Amino acid sequence: MDQFKGKELDLGVFGVWRESVPDRLWIKASGLKLRFCTNETQATREKFVKKLQGMGFDISVTEVTAPAPAACRILKERSLRPHLLVHNALVPEFAEIDKANPNCVVIGDAAENFTYANLNEAFRVLIGMEKPVLISLGRGRYYKETDGLKLDVGAYMKALEYACDVQAEVVGKPAKMFFESALAEMGVPPQQAIMIGDDIVNDVGGAQRCGMRALQVRTGKYRPCDENHPHVKPDAYVNNLAEAVDVILQQL
Amino acid sequence: MDQFKGKELDLGVFGVWRESVPDRLWIKASGLKLRFCTNETQATREKFVKKLQGMGFDISVTEVTAPAPAACRILKERSLRPHLLVHNALVPEFAEIDKANPNCVVIGDAAENFTYANLNEAFRVLIGMEKPVLISLGRGRYYKETDGLKLDVGAYMKALEYACDVQAEVVGKPAKMFFESALAEMGVPPQQAIMIGDDIVNDVGGAQRCGMRALQVRTGKYRPCDENHPHVKPDAYVNNLAEAVDVILQQL
Repeated sequence: MDQFKGKELDLGVFGVWRESVPDRLWIKASGLKLRFCTNETQATREKFVKKLQGMGFDISVTEVTAPAPAACRILKERSLRPHLLVHNALVPEFAEIDKANPNCVVIGDAAENFTYANLNEAFRVLIGMEKPVLISLGRGRYYKETDGLKLDVGAYMKALEYACDVQAEVVGKPAKMFFESALAEMGVPPQQAIMIGDDIVNDVGGAQRCGMRALQVRTGKYRPCDENHPHVKPDAYVNNLAEAVDVILQQL
Repeated sequence: MDQFKGKELDLGVFGVWRESVPDRLWIKASGLKLRFCTNETQATREKFVKKLQGMGFDISVTEVTAPAPAACRILKERSLRPHLLVHNALVPEFAEIDKANPNCVVIGDAAENFTYANLNEAFRVLIGMEKPVLISLGRGRYYKETDGLKLDVGAYMKALEYACDVQAEVVGKPAKMFFESALAEMGVPPQQAIMIGDDIVNDVGGAQRCGMRALQVRTGKYRPCDENHPHVKPDAYVNNLAEAVDVILQQL
């Protein structure tokens, strides 16, 4: 489980989770459909799910929407062969993708793989294309680990965008397409879905732009200044996850 | 001279230089003042000048305007103590600057020093400030070395700008202040100065925005598509440096 060490779990939920397992069970008993939406790109879904299972959740891989599989669908649909600049632990997600003679670059939170040599290599692949295609697994600015703050994939995405004068296609929250594919997998229209998350922009704003309602929990990444956010206003605030579950179940 | 290996000399001139020494001598004999403006940040001015002297130029350090000394002036004026993310060979330019307890970050073309650890460190210094100050020695996208294209300082500047939600102060061409300080050092008003360079944006556009006239030489970085540039139009084109010298001397 080293790949999660110190990095806060990045997770939004259609339904609820975090502090306590019973909340999740209430949701499950209610018959509501549940989906876990994460921007995690430092591990495969398999490892991600094992981590949650270790915390007591009976979650399965098929309940998780994550950037790498979403990117794989795009790659297949458009016959794109990626040059990967991603975390070693994520590479297995791309096992079935043809990577010979690349015609696009896929960038994730590569962490230690963000070396000078690897960045130059990804850049050369991009700049060598007639029309550069850059797919980014998220657009996060930074995150916190036990040994301090780290630049996230968004910063390196911006570096490549600027160098190649190209705009990246972002897969993951808050991209509309990412929420839409999660809804499609659930077979639920956006008007009937509620997003619960702690990130005002990626969770709440992204879901709302997709036509969903969204609750912000006042835990995790939440900061009081979020309540004065210039662009995003949640449909409601809840102090914690238990309260979110109550709110949802009361309205059934 | 390893620090120059393969990297094209980055140089604009108030006056003329490149293909032949005699051109430069003509200019010198004419009594015109001459200034060399470079965005070079992989070497001190001393090493830069030695390289040119080795090519036959009687240039001195005092004739060179370069980003690092310009940045040092800014640092002193504003009592800024930099955290440096620059090339090892450039560090001596900052010898007299107080670097304890940094309250700004100075980024140059750090090349091999652009490691994951160094980028995170510069980011942490910046994000830890109440009002982050980022000074960038240029905004180049990329350049060519013998072993291929390399990301230039501008790409890493963009990464830090995005992560910290800050706008860098760019020192070097095409910044107006950079040209102004070169003019001040010469004691010449912009209307009486001519910039000669091969870079349509950094040399020609930058000088013109400062009130100078500018010639583009059709050598070096010049590309035919420059002549259709959407924003910048040189006052004249010259096929080579000798022609630029002719044009200037004929008008004396």
